[in-house]
Amino acid sequence: MDYRIEKDTMGEVKVPADKLWGAQTERSRNNFKIGPSASMPLEIVYGFAYLKKAAAYSNCELGVLSEEKRDLIGQVCDEILEGQHDDQFPLVVWQTGSGTQSNMNANEVIANRAHQLAGKVIGEGEKTIQPNDDVNKSQSSNDTFPTGMHIAAYKKIVENTIPGVTQLRDTLLKKSEEFKSVVKIGRTHLMDATPLTLGQEFSGYAAQLSYGLKALNNTLPHLSELALGGTAVGTGLNTPKGYSENVAGYIAEFTGLPFITAENKFEALAAHDAIVESHGALKQLAVSLNKIANDVRMMASGPRSGIGEIIIPANEPGSSIMPGKVNPTQCEALTMVCAQVIGNDVAISMAGAQGHYELNVFKPIMSVNFLQSAQLIGDACVSFDIHCAAGIEPNYPKIKELLNSSLMLVTALNTKIGYYKSAEIANTAHKNGTTLKEEAVNLGYVTAEEYDAWVKPEDMIGSLS
Amino acid sequence: MDYRIEKDTMGEVKVPADKLWGAQTERSRNNFKIGPSASMPLEIVYGFAYLKKAAAYSNCELGVLSEEKRDLIGQVCDEILEGQHDDQFPLVVWQTGSGTQSNMNANEVIANRAHQLAGKVIGEGEKTIQPNDDVNKSQSSNDTFPTGMHIAAYKKIVENTIPGVTQLRDTLLKKSEEFKSVVKIGRTHLMDATPLTLGQEFSGYAAQLSYGLKALNNTLPHLSELALGGTAVGTGLNTPKGYSENVAGYIAEFTGLPFITAENKFEALAAHDAIVESHGALKQLAVSLNKIANDVRMMASGPRSGIGEIIIPANEPGSSIMPGKVNPTQCEALTMVCAQVIGNDVAISMAGAQGHYELNVFKPIMSVNFLQSAQLIGDACVSFDIHCAAGIEPNYPKIKELLNSSLMLVTALNTKIGYYKSAEIANTAHKNGTTLKEEAVNLGYVTAEEYDAWVKPEDMIGSLS
Amino acid sequence: MDYRIEKDTMGEVKVPADKLWGAQTERSRNNFKIGPSASMPLEIVYGFAYLKKAAAYSNCELGVLSEEKRDLIGQVCDEILEGQHDDQFPLVVWQTGSGTQSNMNANEVIANRAHQLAGKVIGEGEKTIQPNDDVNKSQSSNDTFPTGMHIAAYKKIVENTIPGVTQLRDTLLKKSEEFKSVVKIGRTHLMDATPLTLGQEFSGYAAQLSYGLKALNNTLPHLSELALGGTAVGTGLNTPKGYSENVAGYIAEFTGLPFITAENKFEALAAHDAIVESHGALKQLAVSLNKIANDVRMMASGPRSGIGEIIIPANEPGSSIMPGKVNPTQCEALTMVCAQVIGNDVAISMAGAQGHYELNVFKPIMSVNFLQSAQLIGDACVSFDIHCAAGIEPNYPKIKELLNSSLMLVTALNTKIGYYKSAEIANTAHKNGTTLKEEAVNLGYVTAEEYDAWVKPEDMIGSLS
Amino acid sequence: MDYRIEKDTMGEVKVPADKLWGAQTERSRNNFKIGPSASMPLEIVYGFAYLKKAAAYSNCELGVLSEEKRDLIGQVCDEILEGQHDDQFPLVVWQTGSGTQSNMNANEVIANRAHQLAGKVIGEGEKTIQPNDDVNKSQSSNDTFPTGMHIAAYKKIVENTIPGVTQLRDTLLKKSEEFKSVVKIGRTHLMDATPLTLGQEFSGYAAQLSYGLKALNNTLPHLSELALGGTAVGTGLNTPKGYSENVAGYIAEFTGLPFITAENKFEALAAHDAIVESHGALKQLAVSLNKIANDVRMMASGPRSGIGEIIIPANEPGSSIMPGKVNPTQCEALTMVCAQVIGNDVAISMAGAQGHYELNVFKPIMSVNFLQSAQLIGDACVSFDIHCAAGIEPNYPKIKELLNSSLMLVTALNTKIGYYKSAEIANTAHKNGTTLKEEAVNLGYVTAEEYDAWVKPEDMIGSLS
Repeated sequence: MDYRIEKDTMGEVKVPADKLWGAQTERSRNNFKIGPSASMPLEIVYGFAYLKKAAAYSNCELGVLSEEKRDLIGQVCDEILEGQHDDQFPLVVWQTGSGTQSNMNANEVIANRAHQLAGKVIGEGEKTIQPNDDVNKSQSSNDTFPTGMHIAAYKKIVENTIPGVTQLRDTLLKKSEEFKSVVKIGRTHLMDATPLTLGQEFSGYAAQLSYGLKALNNTLPHLSELALGGTAVGTGLNTPKGYSENVAGYIAEFTGLPFITAENKFEALAAHDAIVESHGALKQLAVSLNKIANDVRMMASGPRSGIGEIIIPANEPGSSIMPGKVNPTQCEALTMVCAQVIGNDVAISMAGAQGHYELNVFKPIMSVNFLQSAQLIGDACVSFDIHCAAGIEPNYPKIKELLNSSLMLVTALNTKIGYYKSAEIANTAHKNGTTLKEEAVNLGYVTAEEYDAWVKPEDMIGSLS
Repeated sequence: MDYRIEKDTMGEVKVPADKLWGAQTERSRNNFKIGPSASMPLEIVYGFAYLKKAAAYSNCELGVLSEEKRDLIGQVCDEILEGQHDDQFPLVVWQTGSGTQSNMNANEVIANRAHQLAGKVIGEGEKTIQPNDDVNKSQSSNDTFPTGMHIAAYKKIVENTIPGVTQLRDTLLKKSEEFKSVVKIGRTHLMDATPLTLGQEFSGYAAQLSYGLKALNNTLPHLSELALGGTAVGTGLNTPKGYSENVAGYIAEFTGLPFITAENKFEALAAHDAIVESHGALKQLAVSLNKIANDVRMMASGPRSGIGEIIIPANEPGSSIMPGKVNPTQCEALTMVCAQVIGNDVAISMAGAQGHYELNVFKPIMSVNFLQSAQLIGDACVSFDIHCAAGIEPNYPKIKELLNSSLMLVTALNTKIGYYKSAEIANTAHKNGTTLKEEAVNLGYVTAEEYDAWVKPEDMIGSLS
Repeated sequence: MDYRIEKDTMGEVKVPADKLWGAQTERSRNNFKIGPSASMPLEIVYGFAYLKKAAAYSNCELGVLSEEKRDLIGQVCDEILEGQHDDQFPLVVWQTGSGTQSNMNANEVIANRAHQLAGKVIGEGEKTIQPNDDVNKSQSSNDTFPTGMHIAAYKKIVENTIPGVTQLRDTLLKKSEEFKSVVKIGRTHLMDATPLTLGQEFSGYAAQLSYGLKALNNTLPHLSELALGGTAVGTGLNTPKGYSENVAGYIAEFTGLPFITAENKFEALAAHDAIVESHGALKQLAVSLNKIANDVRMMASGPRSGIGEIIIPANEPGSSIMPGKVNPTQCEALTMVCAQVIGNDVAISMAGAQGHYELNVFKPIMSVNFLQSAQLIGDACVSFDIHCAAGIEPNYPKIKELLNSSLMLVTALNTKIGYYKSAEIANTAHKNGTTLKEEAVNLGYVTAEEYDAWVKPEDMIGSLS
Repeated sequence: MDYRIEKDTMGEVKVPADKLWGAQTERSRNNFKIGPSASMPLEIVYGFAYLKKAAAYSNCELGVLSEEKRDLIGQVCDEILEGQHDDQFPLVVWQTGSGTQSNMNANEVIANRAHQLAGKVIGEGEKTIQPNDDVNKSQSSNDTFPTGMHIAAYKKIVENTIPGVTQLRDTLLKKSEEFKSVVKIGRTHLMDATPLTLGQEFSGYAAQLSYGLKALNNTLPHLSELALGGTAVGTGLNTPKGYSENVAGYIAEFTGLPFITAENKFEALAAHDAIVESHGALKQLAVSLNKIANDVRMMASGPRSGIGEIIIPANEPGSSIMPGKVNPTQCEALTMVCAQVIGNDVAISMAGAQGHYELNVFKPIMSVNFLQSAQLIGDACVSFDIHCAAGIEPNYPKIKELLNSSLMLVTALNTKIGYYKSAEIANTAHKNGTTLKEEAVNLGYVTAEEYDAWVKPEDMIGSLS
C-alpha cells in the first residue's frame, strides 16, 4: 500500500496515502485492534463536526482564530456532515476512554482536508491548518467528546426515537378508538376475568408510550447541556472569555436544537449522568414495548390452537404449508430490541458509575450503547407500527366465542339472584363443561330470556356511573 | 399451639388463635415457604391501611357503606399505621404476583380486629365487618396492590430518599464553598493534569446530586397516580360513580401527599412503569454516588503511601497498630448500596417488562426492590454525610506537595517562553527527577523570580475571562 | 437502658448490658444506620463460628494457643451454631466492605461468652479470652470474611439449592414419563406447529434443570477454596507454619464439606470470582426456571378462554365467584424469584469487578445477594414442586380438541398426495373455518377412511427412524 | 437498479439482479429496517455454511439427496467459508426471533449460487437446487439457527477468547515471576497495609484468569451439543433415521471441533441455556479483567502526583506538553469491554428466560451479544497484553519510597519491643510527619542498627514458615 509520513510528538508514523487522517489516528488503529474497525459511531463523528465548526466560529468571534481558518474549518465540517468523509474515521469504540483519539481523528482529518481545500497537497508544505493549535483551539478531548456525545444523543432522540415511538403510540391510540366497542374477555394471571373492550386494552398500551415519551422529554434539558468550554479538567483553562456560552450558541444554531452550556463543567467532564438519565427513559420504553409486543403476540396466537383474538398482518411466509401461520415476527424483533436496551442500560450504568477524579473514561462505550438503544427503539417502533400495529384487526368470531364461553360473566347475575346462586351456576357449568345459560336455566334460577337480558358483557366494561 | 377455625370459599383452615389474620393469609403462609417469613415490607402494609381507610370513607360517602363500618375500618387502619399490628402480616414477597394474598391479609386483619373493637370475640358470632364485602368493597387485589405500592414508594421517596440525598448534597455544596481556594492537582485518566480547586471538585459532586434530585422529582407525578377504582381489569366494575377521584382524594388527605387517580386504569394494573421510571432515577443517583464515594476514598488514601489529599473522620479502629489507617468505611457502605441499587434496577426492569394482558403479576418484587433502593440510598447518604462528608478536611501539606511536584504546571510558561522550551523544561525535570523550577533556571529560560511570578497554580483554575 | 463500658483502641463505648458484643460492634451499630438492623445474614455468622473454632483448633495444634482457650472458643462456636446467640449479631450488610466489623462482632461475642463460660462476669476482671489476640489469632478480617462467605455459600448450595432444584427436576422427569403418550399440538412463535407429546415438553424442562445442576456443580471446586491463612494482604503474615492447610482441614471436618485452602491467597482476598462464578450458575437456573414457569402458566391458562391444556392444583381461592379460576400463583412466585436472581447477578458482578489492590471491599453485598439467590431458588423450586408441578395433570379433552383442530396435521398428507394438494386442503379449511378432514374429503383428494388412517398425530412425534 | 423476480409462497418479489439471495431474504430486508443493515454476524453465516454442507453430506449418506446436489451445496458452502459471499447476507439481527430469515438467506444464496456453478443463469430455468427441498432438507429454521449459533459461539471461544485470555494470563504469570523479589507496600481499603511483592500481586491476577479459563472450559461441553435433527419442534419430524448423530459427526469433521448431537432436542430449540452458561463465564472473565485493569492504572498513576509504582508503555501521546503523562489507554479500552460484557450478559439472560413452548425466539440477539463479548474479550486481552502488560516495569525508586515511608512496617517491631511501644512509635511518627526509624530511635526503644536489622519488609511477605 502507498503511504505518507505523518508526525506527532512521539515521532513519525506511516499513514495510507489516500487517507486524510494523521499520526495519532494511525497509532490508535494499530494499538486498538479490538472488534471490527470503525465501530465508533458516525453520529459521534458528526457531533464532532458540529462542535469543531462552532469552536472555529466562536474562536474567530472572540478574536483567537482568523476568518480564513474559520471558513476552512467550517467548510470541511460541512463536508463531513454531508457524509463525504465517512471512511476517514476508522477508529474503534474500544480506545482511550476519553475518546481522545477520535477527537484527534477529527482534528487531523479537518486539518488535512483544509490543506487540500486551500489548494495544497497533504504532507507537502506547512499545514495550512494545525490539528491541535487551530482545529482543537480552546478545546480538549475531555470537553469535546462529551459535547459530541450529547449532540449525537440529543439528535438521535429527537430525530429518531421520539418520532418512532410517537408514530406507534398514535397508531395504538387510533386502534383504541377503532376497537372501543369490541367487548372481549379480560385476563388476569393469564386466567379468564371480567370483560373489557379491545379498545380499552389498546388505550393502556398507548398510555404506556405516552408516559414513556414524557419521561424521555423530561431528560432532554440535562442532555442539552454541553461540556465544551471546560477544556482539560473543567476549569476552562486556555479558553477566551465568554467562550462557553458563545460556542454553545453556535452549536444550537448549527444543529437547530436548544443546546446550552453546562452549568457545572466539572460534573460535565467527570460524570455523564445525563446519558444515564436519558437512557433510563429509553429503558423504560423498552419495558413498555416488551409488554405491548408480548400481549400482541399472545392475542394473535393460533390460528386454531391459540388465543387468536386479533389478526396481525402476514408479511412473510410463516410456514410453507400451513395457511394462517402468521408468525409475530415484528413482535419478536421488537422484544429482542427491548432485551438489548435493558442490557445496554447496565453497561451504561456500570460505565457511568466509574468516573475517576476529573474525568470519566467510559465515554465511548456510553455513547455507542446509547445511540444503539435510541436508534433501535425508534426503528423498531416504526417497523412494528407499519408492519404490525397498523394492520391489527379483531378476529370477531374468536373474540365472541371466548367471551361467551367464559364463566366469568356469571358475575352479572350477582345483583339479580345473589352471589351464592350465581356461584352455583358457574360451578355446575364448570363441572359439566356446559354453558352458563344452560345451567342457569336448568337450575331454574332464571329463564332464557332473563339470562339474555341480564348477562350482557357490554354492560360490564365501565364503572357503575 | 392454640388454633381457631377460619373459612374461605375453599373451606376451613386452622389459624393460630392469637392472630388476627384469616383463612387466606394462613393458606398463603403454608403455600409459600420461600425465604424468610414476613418479607413483604411493612411499608406496603401501611399503604394498604391508608387505602382501606380511604376506600371505607369513599364507600360511605358514596352511599355503599354504613358510617359504623367506615369508622370501625378507619379505626383499625389507624392502629395499623401506629404500628400496633406489625406482627399480623406474616406473608412473603414470593407469593402470588398480584399481591392478592397481602390484600386479603389486610382485609382479614381489619375485619377481625374490627370485630374485637365492636366488643366481640374473633371467631364467635357473625363477623361485624366482612373482609371481602366490607373491607374490600369497590376494590380488587389488582387495583389495591398497585395503589399500596405507589403510596409506599412515594412516601419513601419524599420522606427518606430526597431528604437524605439533599442533606448530603447540601454538605457537598458547603464543602465546595469552604474549599474554594484550595488549589490542587487535577487528574484525568488518573494521571496528573492541570490544577483546579478542591472546591471545584466538590461542586461537581453537588451538581451530580442536584441533577439526580431533579430527575427523581420529575418521576413523582407518574408515581402519584393511583390505580384504585380500576378493580379487577381496569374497567372499574362494581365501583360507585365518582369513586376513583373520591378515593384518591381521601388518600391524598390521609397521607398529606398529592395523590390523584390514574388517568388510565388499564395501564395502571397491567404495567408498573411508574415504578420503573422512579427507580431509574434512584439508579441514576446510585451511579452518581458511586463516583463521589470512589473519589473520596482515593483522595483519602494513605496515610503515607497513597494520595492523601483529604482527611476523613476516623469512626472506628482501622488498624489496631497503625495510626492514620482510617478506612473509608462509609465509602464502602455507600458503594455497596450503589451496586445493590443497580442490581435492583435490573430486577425491576425484568419484572416490569413481563406484564400479561390486564395484569402485571410481578408487583411484590417490584415493590420490595424499589423500597429497598429508596431506603438504602436515603440512609446511606445520611450515614455518609454525618460520618464522612461533613468531616472531610483538606490535607494541606500533601495537597501542596503533590501540586508543586507536578510537571503539568509548566503549561503556565507556554505564553511566556513558548511551547517548545516549556516542553523541554518538563522533559528534563521528568528525566532527572527534579523540579520544574530547577530545570527552568538551569536551562536558562527563566530566572527563579520569573518562575515564581509566572507559575502560579492559582491562576490556572478559571477561564481566561 | 442498662449499659456496661467496653473499650477498643479508640476508647470507651457504652454497650447494652445484656449483650455479648463489644466496643467495635457497638460503634458499627451507631455508624451504619442503613436499612433494617441485623441484615448481615446469620449464615455468615455461622460461617464465622465454623472458622473461629477451626482456627482455635489449628492454633492449638500448631502450638500458639492453649488447649483451655481452644476449648472455650470451640464451646462458644458450638453454641452459636446451635442458634443460641442469634440476637448477638446486630450488624448490617452496609458496613465496611471487608466485613471487619462482623469479624469483630464474632470475636467480641465469643470472647465475652467464653468469659461467662469460665464462670466470670462480662466486664469484670481481665478477659479470659481476648477478642483480637485469641479469637482472631492467625487471622485478619480480610481472610476470615471471604472464608465465612465461602462456607455459607457452599453450605447453602448443597443444603438448599441443589436439593430443591433436584426435587423439582425429578418431578419433571417423572411427569415426562407419565405424559409420554399424551400427544398435543406443538407451538413455535406461539403459533400452532407440528405435534409432540406433553412428555417431550416436560423432558425439555427436566433437561434444562439437569444442565443447570451440572453447571452449578462445576462451580463448587472454586467455592471450596478458602482464603483463611492469607491474613491481611494474602502473605499469611503472623500465621504459624502449616496453618492454611491445617485450618482448612478443620473446617472441612467441622462442616463435613470438602473445603481446601485456596491455592493463591492474593486472589482469594482481592477478588471473589468464585462467588461470581457460582452465582452465574444460579442465574442460569433462574433463566431456565423462568421458561418453565411461563410455559406452565400459559398451558394452564383458562379455564375456558385460554389454552387450558394442563390442570394445575388449586391451592387457594383464585376468585370468589368463578370456579376453575386457578391462578398460577406458584408460577408467579417462581418467576419473581427468577427476576430477583437476575438482578442480584448484576449487583454481584458490579461488586466483584471493583476490587482494589489487595482487597475487594464489596464482600458483604456479594454474600447477601448470593445467599438470597441460593435460598430463593431452592425454596421456590420446592414450593413450585409440591404445590404445582407434582400435581400437574393433562386436560385430555382440551389437548385433543386443540390437537385435532390444528391445520398443521396436514403435513402428514404430504407423502401421500403431495405438497400442493395438502396445502390446498389446509388453505381451504382455514378460509372456511372447517376441519382438514371435511375439506380433504370435499376436495376429493382422500376418503374419510384414508384421512383417519393417514393423519395420525401420534405418528408425527418422533423421527422417521 | 436492475432487478430480477424471485418467488416464494406469498408471491413475487423484486430482488437486485446482482445478488444471490431470493424472495424471503428480500422480504426481510424490507420488513425489518431496524438499525444498520447486515448486522447479523458473519460468524453465524459461516455457522450456517458448515451445517448446510454437513446436512447435504448426511442427507446424501442417508439416501435422501443425490451426490450431485451434495457436491454443489458443499462447494457453495466452501465458497461462503472462504469469504467469497460475505455481501450476500444483508439481514439484520432484529428480524424474526427464530432466525428463519437468515436460514432462508443461506438456503437461497446456496441454491442460486449452485445454479450458477451448474453453469446456469439465476432466474432462468428450473432451479438446479431448491432452497427448501434441497438445501434445507431434514432441517428447520428452528434447529438450524441454534446449531449455527453453537458453531459460531464455540469457534469464537476456542479461536479467539481462550487464546487471547491465555496469552494475557501467561504474561501475567511471567511478570509474577519477574517481580517476585520486588517488595512493595500492600494496600487494603486503598490504605497502606503490610508489604507484599509485586510478583505476588501479579500472581493473583494470573490466578483470576486461570480460574476464568477453567470456568469457560467447563461450559464447552454444553455448547458442543447441537440442535440439528430436531427440526420444527424437536421431534425430528421428516429426518431420516440416524440423521442427528450423522450430521453432528460431519459438523465435527468439517470444523475440527468436538460437536455432538444434543441429548434432548426439545431443550435445544426451546431454551438456549448453553449460551447463557458460556456467557456467564465470559462475564466472570470481564469481572476479573476489570479488577486487573483498574489495579494497573492505579499503580501506574502519576507520573508525579499519583501512586506511580509501575511504568506502563507509552503507546501514543498522552499529553502534547507533559512528559511522563502516559495515559492508561489499554486499561480504559479493557474496562469498557468489561462493562459491555456485563451489560450483554443481562441482554442474554433476559432473552434466554423468555422462550415460549417449543421455541425460544430470541436467538439472534443471544448470538450477537455472545459473539461480541467473546470477540471483545479475546481482542482486548491481546491488545492489553501487547501494548500494556508485557511492557510493565516496576518503578523501583517509587516503590521503595512508598514502602519505606509506610508506618505499617512498625509491625515488625512487635515481637521485639511489644505492641504498645511499637504503636507509640508509629503514632508519634504519624503525628510529627517523621519516619518510624527517627522516632524509634528518639523514643529510645531501639538503636538505629537494631531498627535496620529488625525492620525488613522483605521478611514480612510470607508466612512464618
